[in-house]
Amino acid sequence: MNLADSMEIDPEQSRTRILEVAELYFRRIGYHKTSVADIASELGMSRANIYRFFPSRTSINSSVCGLIVKEVAEVAHAIARMDAPAGKRLVELLYTLHRHSMRRLVEERPIHELLAAAMNERWTIIDAHNEQILAILRALIREGLQAGEFKVEDAEEAAQGAITAFLPFFHPVLVEQRVQEGEDTAVAVRAQIRFIMRALGNFQSCAVETRGRSSIS
Amino acid sequence: MNLADSMEIDPEQSRTRILEVAELYFRRIGYHKTSVADIASELGMSRANIYRFFPSRTSINSSVCGLIVKEVAEVAHAIARMDAPAGKRLVELLYTLHRHSMRRLVEERPIHELLAAAMNERWTIIDAHNEQILAILRALIREGLQAGEFKVEDAEEAAQGAITAFLPFFHPVLVEQRVQEGEDTAVAVRAQIRFIMRALGNFQSCAVETRGRSSIS
Repeated sequence: MNLADSMEIDPEQSRTRILEVAELYFRRIGYHKTSVADIASELGMSRANIYRFFPSRTSINSSVCGLIVKEVAEVAHAIARMDAPAGKRLVELLYTLHRHSMRRLVEERPIHELLAAAMNERWTIIDAHNEQILAILRALIREGLQAGEFKVEDAEEAAQGAITAFLPFFHPVLVEQRVQEGEDTAVAVRAQIRFIMRALGNFQSCAVETRGRSSIS
Repeated sequence: MNLADSMEIDPEQSRTRILEVAELYFRRIGYHKTSVADIASELGMSRANIYRFFPSRTSINSSVCGLIVKEVAEVAHAIARMDAPAGKRLVELLYTLHRHSMRRLVEERPIHELLAAAMNERWTIIDAHNEQILAILRALIREGLQAGEFKVEDAEEAAQGAITAFLPFFHPVLVEQRVQEGEDTAVAVRAQIRFIMRALGNFQSCAVETRGRSSIS
């Protein structure tokens, strides 16, 4: 009870601490194997106290997942704000989505599995994240249209088309399949970005990409 | 031994019978729950006799999967041979891949699950099938280039780009996610085909598609 009382001083800080410990466990032993008891024990509190901040195990999973995708969204926002043509920023954004997905697969396997579950089971946090990324793409395409870089009739449809066409390069399940197949992902991702840029009526940003990685990363 | 002898009269016919019964069981109770003993018992033969025709359970799964995708490939070939502009045939081919995938999900759930496993676990039969579909796309794009319907630099890369961009509409796992999400798939698939046709530099076939389904199905 005393511990619970002390946590009440700053509930936001308590939530943050719980999520930090949860993420640590997720990274160490996987989200499946992590129990609320593990998290409680690490924090020296009771399971009941954890449930005061998170109604269920599911909500802890979802909140940790939210932290992971928030980082991606922040990088995406930073790219969108860069001083470069819209086409180059869009290309860079797509590369970034792919790189993050690859890094999780290769270096952060337990986090990759958390995101795979989140996408397979359609956790609402993922829908919100997808909507954010889509909004950034849409804004970039509108900017590109105004600057005469793109040629599409409907920015909304074009943004949706682009992100769908690129899904095989950032969806955890599909990225894993590509890597298992032994595909040269670097070549394939470049080709797919060229394909997408052609659909947006932009041939210049693709041409740059054929010579190597974008220079604004 | 007698039974085995009688099967030897026509080994091809025996293989076909075994696969017919396997497919029947797969459709009825799913490929996971079907045992070689089930198939053997239905055919009034021993398990050992089945193994004379198929080295393993895996090879039965793979062969049934081969029959399913062979049907899709045959329809794809038939579309490619139709008397219509290359763009219209390509559009029709994409719709067909989507329709088959949707039908399996909705009406043939156990077959959907077999194909999902085949794609997730990269069964070689799927690679061979994908290569066939890619070859058809490539040929259609080359025809379209010659006829001045398409405008791309590299038919090979364009075919790969198109099928990758369309993967979310026929990959069993992704199609299932879309349906679970309650998406209006008919609208989304039309938009994605328009996006792909733009990348191929063909705006006419897309324009037709905005008014409804293709007329060559």
